[in-house]
Amino acid sequence: MSCVSHITHGLWRLPDNNRHRYTDIRYWTELARILEDGGFDAVFLADVLGAYDVFRGGPDDALREGLQIPNNDPMLVVPAMAAVTDHLGFGVTASTSYEPPFAFARRMSTLDHLTAGRIGWNVVTSYLPNAARNFGLAEEIEHDTRYAIAEEYLDVLYKLWEGSWDDDAVVRDVARGVYTDPDKVRYIDHVGEHFRVAGPHLSEPSPQRTPVLFQATASPAGIAQAARHAEVVFTGARAGAFAGLLAQFRDAAVAAGRAATDLKVIVQAAVIVGRTDADVERRLAQYREHRSVVGRFVHAGLRFDPTAHPQDLTVREALEREGVPHDAVPPTALESTVGDFARFASEQMERDFFAAGTPTAVADEIERWLDEVGIDGINLRQYHSFDTARDFVELVVPELRRRGRLRESYVPGETLRRRLTGTHDRLPDTHPAAAYRGGRGLGGTRPATDLVLGSTR
Amino acid sequence: MSCVSHITHGLWRLPDNNRHRYTDIRYWTELARILEDGGFDAVFLADVLGAYDVFRGGPDDALREGLQIPNNDPMLVVPAMAAVTDHLGFGVTASTSYEPPFAFARRMSTLDHLTAGRIGWNVVTSYLPNAARNFGLAEEIEHDTRYAIAEEYLDVLYKLWEGSWDDDAVVRDVARGVYTDPDKVRYIDHVGEHFRVAGPHLSEPSPQRTPVLFQATASPAGIAQAARHAEVVFTGARAGAFAGLLAQFRDAAVAAGRAATDLKVIVQAAVIVGRTDADVERRLAQYREHRSVVGRFVHAGLRFDPTAHPQDLTVREALEREGVPHDAVPPTALESTVGDFARFASEQMERDFFAAGTPTAVADEIERWLDEVGIDGINLRQYHSFDTARDFVELVVPELRRRGRLRESYVPGETLRRRLTGTHDRLPDTHPAAAYRGGRGLGGTRPATDLVLGSTR
Repeated sequence: MSCVSHITHGLWRLPDNNRHRYTDIRYWTELARILEDGGFDAVFLADVLGAYDVFRGGPDDALREGLQIPNNDPMLVVPAMAAVTDHLGFGVTASTSYEPPFAFARRMSTLDHLTAGRIGWNVVTSYLPNAARNFGLAEEIEHDTRYAIAEEYLDVLYKLWEGSWDDDAVVRDVARGVYTDPDKVRYIDHVGEHFRVAGPHLSEPSPQRTPVLFQATASPAGIAQAARHAEVVFTGARAGAFAGLLAQFRDAAVAAGRAATDLKVIVQAAVIVGRTDADVERRLAQYREHRSVVGRFVHAGLRFDPTAHPQDLTVREALEREGVPHDAVPPTALESTVGDFARFASEQMERDFFAAGTPTAVADEIERWLDEVGIDGINLRQYHSFDTARDFVELVVPELRRRGRLRESYVPGETLRRRLTGTHDRLPDTHPAAAYRGGRGLGGTRPATDLVLGSTR
Repeated sequence: MSCVSHITHGLWRLPDNNRHRYTDIRYWTELARILEDGGFDAVFLADVLGAYDVFRGGPDDALREGLQIPNNDPMLVVPAMAAVTDHLGFGVTASTSYEPPFAFARRMSTLDHLTAGRIGWNVVTSYLPNAARNFGLAEEIEHDTRYAIAEEYLDVLYKLWEGSWDDDAVVRDVARGVYTDPDKVRYIDHVGEHFRVAGPHLSEPSPQRTPVLFQATASPAGIAQAARHAEVVFTGARAGAFAGLLAQFRDAAVAAGRAATDLKVIVQAAVIVGRTDADVERRLAQYREHRSVVGRFVHAGLRFDPTAHPQDLTVREALEREGVPHDAVPPTALESTVGDFARFASEQMERDFFAAGTPTAVADEIERWLDEVGIDGINLRQYHSFDTARDFVELVVPELRRRGRLRESYVPGETLRRRLTGTHDRLPDTHPAAAYRGGRGLGGTRPATDLVLGSTR
C-alpha cells in the first residue's frame, strides 16, 4: 500500500526499513525491479479512502502509527513501475462506491495500455465510515446496498470495456484519413438504478480490455459476487478451514455458469526466511519487538480500548464498563481476559499462512498449501522494504524453481491474464462481461441477475 | 493530449508521426526525455471527458479523424515521465464538474510527491454535452453553475491541501513510535452547497501542497475565476488585441487582492522552424496538405455542415437551409461564403502566434511577443511527434539561449512553482488557498466571495 504502515503494524520502525520513502518515485521503481528480477507475477496495492477513526473515537492513533494514513493514490505508482519493467503485473485496489464508473473505466483502460496488458483491479466496496463522509455521505452505505451498487458499477464497466468498441475498430488508415471505423464504436446508453452513462468509451481496445479482476473477501455477499465476477480471490482462513472455504468459492462459480478453475484462490503468506534457524529466530524476535498492538486495534476498528483496563478483567466486563454492546467482539472473545485478547491480536501475523524458517522449510510450507489445501498461489506479506522481497527472491525463489514450482523466466509480451490462466488474454466467454461483446445487450436497465446469463451462452 | 489528434487536425497522418503510439508508455518517456534535454519548463496535457458529437449529429467524424477520441487519462502518463526525468514539469488537465474533490485532491498530492514538486493542474469545467451524459446528467451543466461548482470545488481542495495538515505534522519519530503528530492534522468538515467533505486529507504535505494552478480561458467568468485562483493562464487573441486581454487579467488579479505578477500569461505558439527558408516552406506545405477542415469543424462543434452546400452560398443561407439558428456562428461570419468560411477555419493554425521561419526569425517572433505584447511564455503547439519538439530543441533553444531568453540549465531540486515564479515553492499568502493554513477557517459554508479575503491579509 502507498503508505508507511499497511498491515504489519509498527514495523515501519524496523532498522533500514524504507517504508517512509513511499512518497518517493524511486522507492516504487526500485521495488518493481527487485520483484521483476525475482520472477514475481505481480505486485498488489491495497487502498482505503478514509482514516481509521473508530478506535478511541478519532484518527489520532492511526496518525501516530502511520496506519494507512497518510496514504497516496496507488494507481499513480503503477505507470512509474511499468516504465522500468517489462513483465511484472500490477493489482491495484479501487472502490466501486464513491467515484463515477465512466472515469474509472478510462483509468483502467489507460493502465492496461501503458502496462501492455499487465493490469489487474482489486474490486472493493469500501468499509470505513470516514470514507463515506469524505464523499458527501453522512454515514457508510449499508453493506448490501454497497454490493448492489457494485453490481451495477461492474455492469457499466463491462459495457464500456467489452461492448463499446469492437476489436477491429481502430484501422489507422492514413491513405483514407480514417483512424477509427465509426461503425465499430457505439454508445452504451446505460440507464440503471444508480448510474446513467452514455458512452462511447473513450479508450480504444486495450490488450486485456477488462483488467484481471481481483477480489478480497470471505463474506457471503462477497463470495456470491466473487463467484460471478472475480478471476483471482484473496481470502483467508485457518489451514484446517480453508479447504471448505475454497470449495464454497468454486461451487458458487460453477453455479454462476463459470468453470471452477476460472477462479484462482490466493492466500496471504507471512514468510520470514533466513539462511539458518538462528537467523530466522533473530529476525522473528526483531519483528515481535517492533510490532504494535495499538496499530492492530486501530486497523480492526475496535470499539473498546483493551489498554484502558486491568489486564485480568474479562472482555465482557471491559465492554460493560465502557458501555459498548457485546457484539463489538466475536462471541468467543467475551470471556477472555483483556490481556489475552491483546496478546491474541498482536500475534495475528503468526496465524494462518505463517512460515518462519530456512528456505527449505518455507518452500515445504508453500508446497503444503498448494497441494494439501489447494490454493493457487500466495500474496507475500511485506514486513520490511526491501528485505522481505529481497530475501524471498534470494532464498526462496531458487528453491521453488528447483522444485518446479515457479517458472524459470517470463514469457515476453505475455498479459497478466495469460500468465495467470495460461490460456486467455481476454475474459473467457462464460464471464458476464463477455455478454456485451459486439454491442449485444447495451442500453436499458439490466437487472443484476441477468448478468450471469449472457447471450454468448 | 493522450490521443491521436488534439488540435492539429489531420496531422496524425504525417510521415513518421508517432502520435498513434500514445498508448505506448515509451512514447511518453521518449517525449519527456527530449523535452528535458531541451530545457522545457513543463509539458502540458489537455483532456476531455466525452466525444465530440455535435457536428453532423454524432461521433462518427470525431472517430474517423481520431479527434480527441480515442483518448486516455492524461494523469497516468505523468508518473511514467517523472520516472525518467528529474526536472521537467507537468501541467495536467482535470475537470471540476464530474468527479468528487476528495479523491482528486489525493491524486494531485500523490503526483506532487512522485514528481518531487513538479506538478501543475489545468483547471477546467468541461464543455462537451456528451461528457455530461457520461456522468449521469441529461445535459451539460449551465455555464455559470459550472463555475459556481468549480469555486466550491477549489475551496474544498484548498482546505485539504493547505489546511488539513501542518508543515511539521510528520515527525517520523522511530523511538517514540510516532509517524505523525495528531495535533497537527485535522478534519476539514466542509459543508457547502455542492459538496460535503470530512477529511482529513489522506496525503501528507507534498513539496508544493497546492499544485501550480493553470487555467485556459478568455470568457468573462473564466477571467474572473483565473484572477482569483490561477497562477498561469493560457489564453489567445490576435497580437493587436492581446495587450488589452492581458491587462484585463492583471487588473482582475489586483482587484482580487493579488499581485499583477502572480498571474503568468502564456500563449499557444505555432512554430515551424527549419534551417533554411526552403526547409520551412516544404514543411509548411506538407502540414497544409495533411490538415483536415472536417477535424476543425468537429472540434468547434459546428452546428451546420459547410461541406454539404455549394461553396458560394453564404453561411446565412446554409444555416437557413439546415434550419439552424443564425447564432450558430459569430455574426461576422454570416455573410461569408461557405467556401471562405471553411478556408478561414482550415487556416486557424496560421493565426495568432504563428512563426514559420529559420531559427533567427522564430526567435525574433518569440522576443516580439515577450517584449511588445507582454506575455510571460509560450506553449508550443505539437504538430508532429517528435519532430516538433526535436526541431525546437535543436534549432530554437540554442538561439534563445544565445539571446539570454532561456536559462542554460535547470536548478536541481527546484519545484515547478519556483521555476515559474522565481521565489515560491508554495502559494503566496495573498492567494485564497493560503487562508486555510494552520487550520484557520475550516468547516462550515464559506461563500465563494469570502475566499479572496483570507484571514492572512
